[in-house]
Amino acid sequence: MSAIPALDFGKLGGIVPVVTQDALSGEILMQGFMDREAWERTLEERVAYYYSRSRGRLWKKGETSGHLQRVVEAWVDCDEDAVLLKVRQEGGGACHTGYRSCFYRRVGSEGLEVVGERRFDPAKVYGEEEPPA
Amino acid sequence: MSAIPALDFGKLGGIVPVVTQDALSGEILMQGFMDREAWERTLEERVAYYYSRSRGRLWKKGETSGHLQRVVEAWVDCDEDAVLLKVRQEGGGACHTGYRSCFYRRVGSEGLEVVGERRFDPAKVYGEEEPPA
Repeated sequence: MSAIPALDFGKLGGIVPVVTQDALSGEILMQGFMDREAWERTLEERVAYYYSRSRGRLWKKGETSGHLQRVVEAWVDCDEDAVLLKVRQEGGGACHTGYRSCFYRRVGSEGLEVVGERRFDPAKVYGEEEPPA
Repeated sequence: MSAIPALDFGKLGGIVPVVTQDALSGEILMQGFMDREAWERTLEERVAYYYSRSRGRLWKKGETSGHLQRVVEAWVDCDEDAVLLKVRQEGGGACHTGYRSCFYRRVGSEGLEVVGERRFDPAKVYGEEEPPA
């Protein structure tokens, strides 16, 4: 990767929203944020890095679980203030709750309905450690 | 819609990120934000509303262009701080630049490569008016 495209990090105080999509199925796996370092390392290493707002630091996706996201393509939106990653998700799922996608609940007439299926047991993957978010 | 699921609007000062996906093709059309009013009206009227950060107000998608987004499904993520909308996009495209998706540029070895195709002429759709973002 010779050129790292510029992004507008100023609108949210140093981060931009990131949409992460399964490159094959098109399923949305998660929505996160990147700071400049996460963006650069994602493009350089071709695995997804995010900025963890809860921890206030760089977060390599899968650093604890081993469930890396291999970057197939990266896209930038019209205003250069959002990123779309198309990835190959390693391991069972993207969500720290054990679901394949963080979006496993659909709005129904009675409130939220769980639609997704658990792919792994978070207690076995993360142990006592609080997974990043 | 009898119950409006609660969202955590506090992390970004009153808004949450929204991912908008074509319900049929799975293509990501845009990434935007919603405040509480946008979330409620989206579920009540089944068309997408956002919060326009540039205008600082509620924004009904397609209010100028007529290119409404009909909501097929709404999803909430694990932390209840992000929304996924699956929509039927009316008109030619979702992006104010005339492309079907706001993500029409892919990161390549030489920088950003335009991959998407223009579906409408923004000057004809918006005239002199600055489209919302």
